[in-house]
Amino acid sequence: MKTSGGSDAAKRRAGESAAAAVDDGDVVGLGTGSTAAHAIRRIGERVDAGLDVRGVPTSFASRELAADRGIPLVDLDRAVGPDAPGIDLAIDGADQVVTAGSASGGEHAAPANAAIKGGGAAHAREKLVDSAADRFLVVADPSKETAALDRPVPVEVLPAGRSVVAQAVRAADGEPTLRRAERKDGPVVTDNGNLVFDCAFGEIADPAALSTTLSETPGVVDHGLFVDLADEIHVGTATDVRVVTW
Amino acid sequence: MKTSGGSDAAKRRAGESAAAAVDDGDVVGLGTGSTAAHAIRRIGERVDAGLDVRGVPTSFASRELAADRGIPLVDLDRAVGPDAPGIDLAIDGADQVVTAGSASGGEHAAPANAAIKGGGAAHAREKLVDSAADRFLVVADPSKETAALDRPVPVEVLPAGRSVVAQAVRAADGEPTLRRAERKDGPVVTDNGNLVFDCAFGEIADPAALSTTLSETPGVVDHGLFVDLADEIHVGTATDVRVVTW
Repeated sequence: MKTSGGSDAAKRRAGESAAAAVDDGDVVGLGTGSTAAHAIRRIGERVDAGLDVRGVPTSFASRELAADRGIPLVDLDRAVGPDAPGIDLAIDGADQVVTAGSASGGEHAAPANAAIKGGGAAHAREKLVDSAADRFLVVADPSKETAALDRPVPVEVLPAGRSVVAQAVRAADGEPTLRRAERKDGPVVTDNGNLVFDCAFGEIADPAALSTTLSETPGVVDHGLFVDLADEIHVGTATDVRVVTW
Repeated sequence: MKTSGGSDAAKRRAGESAAAAVDDGDVVGLGTGSTAAHAIRRIGERVDAGLDVRGVPTSFASRELAADRGIPLVDLDRAVGPDAPGIDLAIDGADQVVTAGSASGGEHAAPANAAIKGGGAAHAREKLVDSAADRFLVVADPSKETAALDRPVPVEVLPAGRSVVAQAVRAADGEPTLRRAERKDGPVVTDNGNLVFDCAFGEIADPAALSTTLSETPGVVDHGLFVDLADEIHVGTATDVRVVTW
């Protein structure tokens, strides 16, 4: 389910554009995926040049890359709380992101603030970090852009809840598919010990309503719809970077 | 945090009243706690007398009791689904339950359909079973009744999410306390491998709104507010059983 597609140069432009938004002294959420990895590498170069930051990884993979690039790390639990510094900025990729206004809203309508994440099954921790940040920057290439979300939504579920959740997804006009593992028999098991359904809803007309429905379903730990969380989207292209801001 | 109080005779009347609602051939959700245990024992007696039922336990404790009483068991995943029989009825206790109309609604206002569960940290699985049932019967004694919920709400959280969730609870005017274990160092760990915050909100004016807020908080696996799930409440007293119906 890892999203492929999109040129590496475009991803690099997006990642480096977001990395330029990091200020000295910031605590930075470090996202997962090939585009966020470019941001992490660029932040690592800036640390080599003297930038003082601490990183909060959103996944096993981003933790390994950040450590390899010499970025000082801090636990999420030490970054957030009454006496903690807070997370200033998070930079993360997406499997699909809305960057154009809806057709019904007219040519100049603001795009819905909505994205789908979770191809790597890390979306529960990604949402923890991204939602806790003062500013959340999504990095993407044009292959991830859409006017309306229509990719399957990854939903992390308690193992005991799989039948109940599957029934609820069908009741919401979705088709759940248990994500099977490779290099392991049986299903994918998340870092939290849970299962993942990829839930096809077709074109999602109201991401906020579906997000609430999924969150309220017993057995759902978290899901890959990120609604009203982003502050900026940096889309790298062959020649430039476009920034959508809310 | 296990709720004490309430006479055993009152609990027994409530449990046996709900057990009488079980029909031959039913699949029955078997709840957790001292009052639900009376229902399980009574269903066991009816099985001895020839009743044909299968039970879906909501916890380790109810599974053990049901097996001990000779009630045939079926996995939740086998009970719910496109080709499965479904759960006809669930019977479960509560730590606190609204049984009287609100003061503002006048003397004859219907009570809010709301309860708090999770003293035993089994509320995620309890909600899975209870919400999947065609009918959900709450069993209680008068010590659990209230006009407005005001006990701390148990919230099950991903271990990595504890600071983010605590911050969100405080933002919702609640005070989270990590539940500490006894007979084990450190915190209580749920059957799902997660932690529990007991979150004091004072008197909860709008249980449905708080339920949605908690469900949508990243890092929250599930919480102990059960809103609009019950079909009946059976309250055992010293002499009788009162039934509240929606």
